Amino acid sequence: MSNTFGTLFKITTWGESHGKAIGVVVDGCPAGLEINEEDVQKELDKRAPGQSEVVTSRMEDDKVEMLSGMFEGRTTGMPISMLIYNKDIDSSKYEKIKYLLRPGHADFTYQMKYGFRDYRGGGRSSARETAARVAAGAIAKKLLERHGIKIMAYVKEIAGIKAKKIDYNEIYKNNVRCPDKNAARKMEQAILKAKNEGDSVGGICEIIALNVPFGLGKPIYNKLEADLGSAILGINAVKGIEFGSGFELAKMKGSMSNDEFVLKSNNIATKTNHHGGILGGISTGMPIVMRAVVKPASSILKKQKTINYKTMKQESISVEGRHDPATIVRFPPIAEAMTAIVLADHMLMSGKMNPDKLN
Amino acid sequence: MSNTFGTLFKITTWGESHGKAIGVVVDGCPAGLEINEEDVQKELDKRAPGQSEVVTSRMEDDKVEMLSGMFEGRTTGMPISMLIYNKDIDSSKYEKIKYLLRPGHADFTYQMKYGFRDYRGGGRSSARETAARVAAGAIAKKLLERHGIKIMAYVKEIAGIKAKKIDYNEIYKNNVRCPDKNAARKMEQAILKAKNEGDSVGGICEIIALNVPFGLGKPIYNKLEADLGSAILGINAVKGIEFGSGFELAKMKGSMSNDEFVLKSNNIATKTNHHGGILGGISTGMPIVMRAVVKPASSILKKQKTINYKTMKQESISVEGRHDPATIVRFPPIAEAMTAIVLADHMLMSGKMNPDKLN
Amino acid sequence: MSNTFGTLFKITTWGESHGKAIGVVVDGCPAGLEINEEDVQKELDKRAPGQSEVVTSRMEDDKVEMLSGMFEGRTTGMPISMLIYNKDIDSSKYEKIKYLLRPGHADFTYQMKYGFRDYRGGGRSSARETAARVAAGAIAKKLLERHGIKIMAYVKEIAGIKAKKIDYNEIYKNNVRCPDKNAARKMEQAILKAKNEGDSVGGICEIIALNVPFGLGKPIYNKLEADLGSAILGINAVKGIEFGSGFELAKMKGSMSNDEFVLKSNNIATKTNHHGGILGGISTGMPIVMRAVVKPASSILKKQKTINYKTMKQESISVEGRHDPATIVRFPPIAEAMTAIVLADHMLMSGKMNPDKLN
Amino acid sequence: MSNTFGTLFKITTWGESHGKAIGVVVDGCPAGLEINEEDVQKELDKRAPGQSEVVTSRMEDDKVEMLSGMFEGRTTGMPISMLIYNKDIDSSKYEKIKYLLRPGHADFTYQMKYGFRDYRGGGRSSARETAARVAAGAIAKKLLERHGIKIMAYVKEIAGIKAKKIDYNEIYKNNVRCPDKNAARKMEQAILKAKNEGDSVGGICEIIALNVPFGLGKPIYNKLEADLGSAILGINAVKGIEFGSGFELAKMKGSMSNDEFVLKSNNIATKTNHHGGILGGISTGMPIVMRAVVKPASSILKKQKTINYKTMKQESISVEGRHDPATIVRFPPIAEAMTAIVLADHMLMSGKMNPDKLN
Repeated sequence: MSNTFGTLFKITTWGESHGKAIGVVVDGCPAGLEINEEDVQKELDKRAPGQSEVVTSRMEDDKVEMLSGMFEGRTTGMPISMLIYNKDIDSSKYEKIKYLLRPGHADFTYQMKYGFRDYRGGGRSSARETAARVAAGAIAKKLLERHGIKIMAYVKEIAGIKAKKIDYNEIYKNNVRCPDKNAARKMEQAILKAKNEGDSVGGICEIIALNVPFGLGKPIYNKLEADLGSAILGINAVKGIEFGSGFELAKMKGSMSNDEFVLKSNNIATKTNHHGGILGGISTGMPIVMRAVVKPASSILKKQKTINYKTMKQESISVEGRHDPATIVRFPPIAEAMTAIVLADHMLMSGKMNPDKLN
Repeated sequence: MSNTFGTLFKITTWGESHGKAIGVVVDGCPAGLEINEEDVQKELDKRAPGQSEVVTSRMEDDKVEMLSGMFEGRTTGMPISMLIYNKDIDSSKYEKIKYLLRPGHADFTYQMKYGFRDYRGGGRSSARETAARVAAGAIAKKLLERHGIKIMAYVKEIAGIKAKKIDYNEIYKNNVRCPDKNAARKMEQAILKAKNEGDSVGGICEIIALNVPFGLGKPIYNKLEADLGSAILGINAVKGIEFGSGFELAKMKGSMSNDEFVLKSNNIATKTNHHGGILGGISTGMPIVMRAVVKPASSILKKQKTINYKTMKQESISVEGRHDPATIVRFPPIAEAMTAIVLADHMLMSGKMNPDKLN
Repeated sequence: MSNTFGTLFKITTWGESHGKAIGVVVDGCPAGLEINEEDVQKELDKRAPGQSEVVTSRMEDDKVEMLSGMFEGRTTGMPISMLIYNKDIDSSKYEKIKYLLRPGHADFTYQMKYGFRDYRGGGRSSARETAARVAAGAIAKKLLERHGIKIMAYVKEIAGIKAKKIDYNEIYKNNVRCPDKNAARKMEQAILKAKNEGDSVGGICEIIALNVPFGLGKPIYNKLEADLGSAILGINAVKGIEFGSGFELAKMKGSMSNDEFVLKSNNIATKTNHHGGILGGISTGMPIVMRAVVKPASSILKKQKTINYKTMKQESISVEGRHDPATIVRFPPIAEAMTAIVLADHMLMSGKMNPDKLN
Repeated sequence: MSNTFGTLFKITTWGESHGKAIGVVVDGCPAGLEINEEDVQKELDKRAPGQSEVVTSRMEDDKVEMLSGMFEGRTTGMPISMLIYNKDIDSSKYEKIKYLLRPGHADFTYQMKYGFRDYRGGGRSSARETAARVAAGAIAKKLLERHGIKIMAYVKEIAGIKAKKIDYNEIYKNNVRCPDKNAARKMEQAILKAKNEGDSVGGICEIIALNVPFGLGKPIYNKLEADLGSAILGINAVKGIEFGSGFELAKMKGSMSNDEFVLKSNNIATKTNHHGGILGGISTGMPIVMRAVVKPASSILKKQKTINYKTMKQESISVEGRHDPATIVRFPPIAEAMTAIVLADHMLMSGKMNPDKLN
C-alpha cells in the first residue's frame, strides 16, 4: 500500500515538508455527504503550529483546497483531492547539515534505502505530511458524525506529568491539548524548561471513540486492534500503542481483566471496560480506548554525536531551525484523523454504511 | 484482507477450533527453497500444548501435511497449502453454555456481528487458528535464515514477575519460555497458584529480530512499526505493543532518547537502541526490539456474571474445559511466526529477496 | 494478488495437476448461507471430464470436501476451505518429455521465470486448477441466486461452426455445451475429426448474466468490464474477451451502437443491448453479455518442433497423454464460476448484499 | 481499488471533466529516475485534442505540474503528484440536458448508483480523466526505456477501413494515428463524413510492446493477459480486447496456433507469435501484441430517443457541445500509458527492477 491507506475508505497522501505542496486523495466516500472547505479547515487549524510558545514558530498557514469529488456542496462518490500549498519555507538551515545524520530522525534510513533524499525539513518523513491525513480525517469524521460516533484525542501524559481528570471541554483551551487544566499548566512548564535547555520531551496521547456500534472489525487479520494499531503506529514518532487496560493487563488476573456482561437499558454491555471496546477484534459497543506513546522530538539544539556520511567521520550536530519541543501536543488531531479513517472504513466493510450513497 | 495477511509474501488461514481441520495457504514464497514437513513440524511443536502443568491438557498432536507448491523437496513459487487435522476434540462442554457469553471472549461480538456462530471451542476466534500461522511462519523463517536473520521471542514478564537476564539458550528449557531460569521458576509458581484458584494470569512477550538489513519498511503507511504492529496486534489476546524503549519514551528527554550515530567496523550504527531498530518506519540494521502484552486467559473456572443471550437474563458462568491458565507461555512461537512473515514480505518488497526464484 | 482473486468476496486457490490435492479458500461469504457439499459437487460435475469422446479420458472423479466456515449447514462468515484430492494420476508420460518445451504450453515461461518447475501434467499451469475455481463459484452462485441473478455460459462457436439459436435447456444435453442442437452435432464431428488427426480445435464461449441489478461496478479502475475481463482472461487458454457487440462496434456508427433509453414497466431500460449490460463500467440492469475466445488445446499428438532446454537442441515432440481435443467444451462452468465470483464481489462492494450476515 | 490501479507501481487518479483540475498520484516509482515536466508534457501532447478537424474543438491546453516526489531532477521514491488545471470549460450545454440520459454514456448508471451526479461534461466518467493516466504513463515509460522496452499503440481499423501496413514512423504524421498513410487518408474521410451526418465511428487500436523480458506475469490471477486486460478494458469506450491471434484462434487448429520453439541467436524463442508474447500468463520475450475495440463516440448530434429521468417521460436528444466524432484517434497514447503502467508494475513484481532505487 505504501502511500495509500484503507480498504474501502482509502486515503493516498503525497508531498514533502519543503516541496511545493502536500495533499491527499480520499477515495470511497459515499455520494451525498455535505461538506466544504471550512469543515476541513477547522480540523487543520486544530493541528496548526504557531499557536504558542510550546510549538514551532513555523507559520503553517495551511489553506486547504478541494479540487474534485464535490458537486453543489456534496460529495459525488468520486475521489476527493485536497491540496495545501507549502508556505513560509526556509530550507537554508538544512543545506549546511545535509550530510549529517540527525539522531532520532529518518535521515539515515531514507539515505540508505533510497540512495538519495530530499533533506530539506526531513522531506517526506516530516510530520508535515500529517496535515494531509488530518484533511482526510475531516471527511471521515463528518461521515461518522451521521452515526453519532465521536472521536476525541488528548494528551494524557508529558514528561512524567499525568492528567488526573478528563474534562473534554478543557482540551483545546490550553496549549498542550490536556483535558486537565492543572496538569496542563505543569506540562507547559516542563516543555518550556526542556526547550530552554535545547532539549525536548515525549508523552502519551489517549484516543477515545464513543458510540461506535458493535460489529466493526474483520477477523482474523483486520481485527480492529490491528487496523487501528497500523494506523496509529504509522504516525511519526509513535513507538507504542495499547488498548483498554493495555500493558497493565500483564499484572492482572483473568477474574479482574474479564469484563462481566450486564444489561444496560435492555442491551448487553460490559460492566467495566478493560477490553477497551474491542473483543475478538470486533467492537462491542463500549467506548474504544487506546493510548499511544510519542517519543521526544528528535530535533534538539543540544549537541549530539553523529556521522557525516559523506566523509564517514564522527562530528557533532546541533539541530537549528524552527522545531516543536514536544510534538505530542500536535499529535491529538492526527490521531483523531487516523482513528476516524479506520472506523469509516470498517463502517463500510461491515455494511453499516452504504458505499455508494448515503441513506 | 480479513483472512489473508501480507502483500507479496501472503498467508491465508482457515479453520475452527473444533472443525475438521485448520490450514494455511502461503503465497509468494520464491521458487527453490528447500523445506519439508519436518521443518514446519519443528515450529509447530514449539507451540504445542500438553507439555506441562502450566498449559491446557488438550493434546494437540498436530501433524502438518504439505499439499502443494513443492516439487522434489523444493518450493516451486506456487502457493503452498498446509493442513492440520483437528484431533482430540471434545465439544460437549460448550454445548451446555452455548447461550452464555463467556466474559473476555469473542462470543458476544461474533454472535452480534454474524447473527450466529460456531460456539464449539470458540470456533474461528480460538487461538487454535494460530497453529496455521506458525506453520506459515516456518517457511518465512527458513527464507530469512538464508540472509542470516534470526527471530527470537520469549516471555519477559508474567504476573508481575520479570526476567532479569536474557539467556537465549534458556528459553525452551523451561515451561514458560522465559530466558531467565530463576524468573521462570517463579513465573511457573504464579501460574499454578492462579490455576488452583480457578484464575489466570497475563504477561509480556519480547520479540527480537537480529541481522535485519537496513532498508526494510515502506513509508508512509507500511512503516515497519505499522506492519509489525498489525501482525502482532492481530494475535489473540494481545492488547498492546511497543518498540524499542516504548512507553518509557514518554518520560525521556530527546537528548536521551535520540540514539547517537557512531561507526562500527566502518559501518554507520547507533550507540544505543531506544529506537528499537526502526527509524522513520525503516529498519536501521540494529536489532528490532518489540514487546507485546498478552491479557490473562479469558477462560476461568471462577464464577463470573454474564448474560444468557437467549433469555436475556443475568446468569453466572464457570468456564470448564481444558484451558491454558497463561496463554502467554504459548505466545512466543506465534509472535516469531508473524514477525517472520512481515520481515519476509518486506525483504521482497524492498528488493532484497527475488520474488521469483532464490538467487 | 497472484493466487488470490477478489476484494470483499475473495478466493485463494492452490494445487497442481499431479500433486496430492487442489483446493480453494473462499473468504468473505456472509454468514447464514445454506449450502452443502452436494451443491458444490453439482457444479464440479458440470466441469468433469471423462464424459464423452470429445474430452480427455482422465477420470477426474472429483469429490469436494468442505473443511471450514460451515456450522449446522450454514456459512459462518469465516473462510470456507474446500479440498479435492487428486486421483487417477499418471505422470509417466511427462517424465520422458520433461526437458522438451511443449508448444503452446507454459513449460517455457515457468521454467524461465522460476528456474525450475513441476513438469507433471503442467503442474500449476494445468487447467486442473480451475476445478477449485468452480467449487468457489458454486458458493458465489448460491449467493447470487438469492437475488435472482442467473449466470449461463455456453459454447457459441467451435472450429468455425456457430450456434444459430440459443436454447438454454439444450446446453447440458449435448457433449459440447452448445445451446443449439444441430450446431452441437456438427461441432462434435469437427472435434472428433481433429482428434483423429492428432490435432485440436478452439472456440468461443458466450456468458450471460440475467437479473443483475443496476449499479454494480466501481469506476474508474474496477469497472465491471475490467473486473470481469481480468477474471475471464485469467482462465487458461483464453486469448480475448468482448462485451455486448464487442469487436463489431468497430464497424458501427454511434447512431446505431448507442442504445436508446426507453421505459419498460415504468423502469428505465435500453431498447437494444449493444452495450452488453454495462455503461461507464456500471451495470445497467440489462443482461450482461460477454464472449471469450479459447485457443485450441495445446497438447496434440501431431509432431511439432521444439527445443530441449537441457541440450539446447532442436527436437520434435508429440504430446501423448490423456488430453482434451477441445478445452472449450469444459470451459463454460469455469466461466460461470469466475463471473459469479466477480458479481458476488460487486454485490458486496456496492452495498447490495450485507458483508456480515444475509438479511 | 476503485481509483487506484496497480500493486507495486500504483496510480491514483482524481478529477472531473469540468471540475477545477484533474490529477494523479504515482506511487512506487523507484528513487533516482531522471524525469521532468517536459517528459510528461510530451506524452500529454500526443493525447491532446484540438489538433485537427477529426477531434473535438475543445482546447485542452493541458500543462502538467509536478508537485512532489522529485528532488534535484530525480525521483525520490516518494509519491509523485501531478496536477493539470482544467481550462476552456463551457458547461452551459450540459445544463439544459441535465435530466436527459445521453444514450451510450454513463449518465444513467452514475445517476442510479450514486443518486446524484456531476453532469457537466460527464463529470468523472468523461475521457478527460485519461489525461491523468497518460501523465502517469509517462513515468512508467521512462522506467521501461531504461530496460529497452518500447510500447507503441496505433489505430488499426476505423469504420471498416483497415491499416494494411505498419510503419511506426507514420503514426503521428497523420490525424488518425494510423501506421498506414493510405489507410489514414480514408479513415479521416470516413470520420468527417460521419461528423457531417451528426454521427460518429468506432475502431480498433493495436498495442505492441517490444523487448519485454521473459518472466513478467504472476499466475494464477495476475497473469499478464488479466492485468493488461483489466488496464485496457478500464479505459472509456473499450468493449473488447484480444491478444496475439485473438478471436481468430476460434477457427484455428492446435497444430497451427501452437507456436513452435526455435533457437534465435542461441536463445529460445518462438517461430510465430499467435500467442502474442504471453504463455501461461507470463511473457515469453516475443513482442506483446494486443488489440482493443473502441466503440463509436456516444455524443452525437443526430436525434436519439431517451428518457428524462425527472419527468420519466420519453424525449429526444441531440447532444451538442464539442465532441470527438472518433474517440479512437485519441486512444493510442492512453493505451500506451496503461500498458506501460502494467509492465512497470510487473517489472517490480518479478524482481527485474529494484523497488527502492534504480541500479
